[in-house]
Amino acid sequence: MNALAQVKFDDQGLIPAISQDYKTGEILMFAWMNKEALTLTIEKQQAVYYSRSRKKLWFKGEESGHTQVIKEIYSDCDQDVILLKIKQIGGIACHTGRASCFFHKLNDDKWHSTKDVIKDPKDIYG
Amino acid sequence: MNALAQVKFDDQGLIPAISQDYKTGEILMFAWMNKEALTLTIEKQQAVYYSRSRKKLWFKGEESGHTQVIKEIYSDCDQDVILLKIKQIGGIACHTGRASCFFHKLNDDKWHSTKDVIKDPKDIYG
Repeated sequence: MNALAQVKFDDQGLIPAISQDYKTGEILMFAWMNKEALTLTIEKQQAVYYSRSRKKLWFKGEESGHTQVIKEIYSDCDQDVILLKIKQIGGIACHTGRASCFFHKLNDDKWHSTKDVIKDPKDIYG
Repeated sequence: MNALAQVKFDDQGLIPAISQDYKTGEILMFAWMNKEALTLTIEKQQAVYYSRSRKKLWFKGEESGHTQVIKEIYSDCDQDVILLKIKQIGGIACHTGRASCFFHKLNDDKWHSTKDVIKDPKDIYG
């Protein structure tokens, strides 16, 4: 792929990837991709990340069914960050069972949970 | 600050930070913060990042006037990513003079520029 040649991966071969709901604009997740993950994401039109902890490709939704269907793919000015505009299948992006991972809100020097758990993770991954 | 103790910085002492327009939901920028940058961001209610290339604090808008006024601060499930909901002063977040850094859109294996330059960078930084 020609487009991939312009993308800049870091010295560990990774690039940050933000996923955003293509309709509401809500930021759902932040993860990393290596070249293979980005290639597969483009080919399958479904988000594939690289898990730094498990050191392997992470086919988002493989276990949970909460896949992310690609609507649009952007890169930033330096082409070292990827933005995926996606349709979140199941309406749950976070492994905690919430719609989005960004649910801790800072207020008065404390983090407050601002999003409800839609589905218990035990029922998602159990 | 108590809230800072819960935030996880990486082995280089950094945390990714996404900035998003608090009204439109448009993703404007992706940058990094160290502990001092995040502390100052909270204190000043204005975005302060850490420039990895210049190896120093980056007071966003210091040169350009395009400061980012904090409306809300979130962290993700693992508390190792920060999301700033901001008001972008001047309507330009990107150093290329565009509203947002995420203007390269992938289509048919090519990146297409999807946002106009609002102001020539020479006139912003000159």
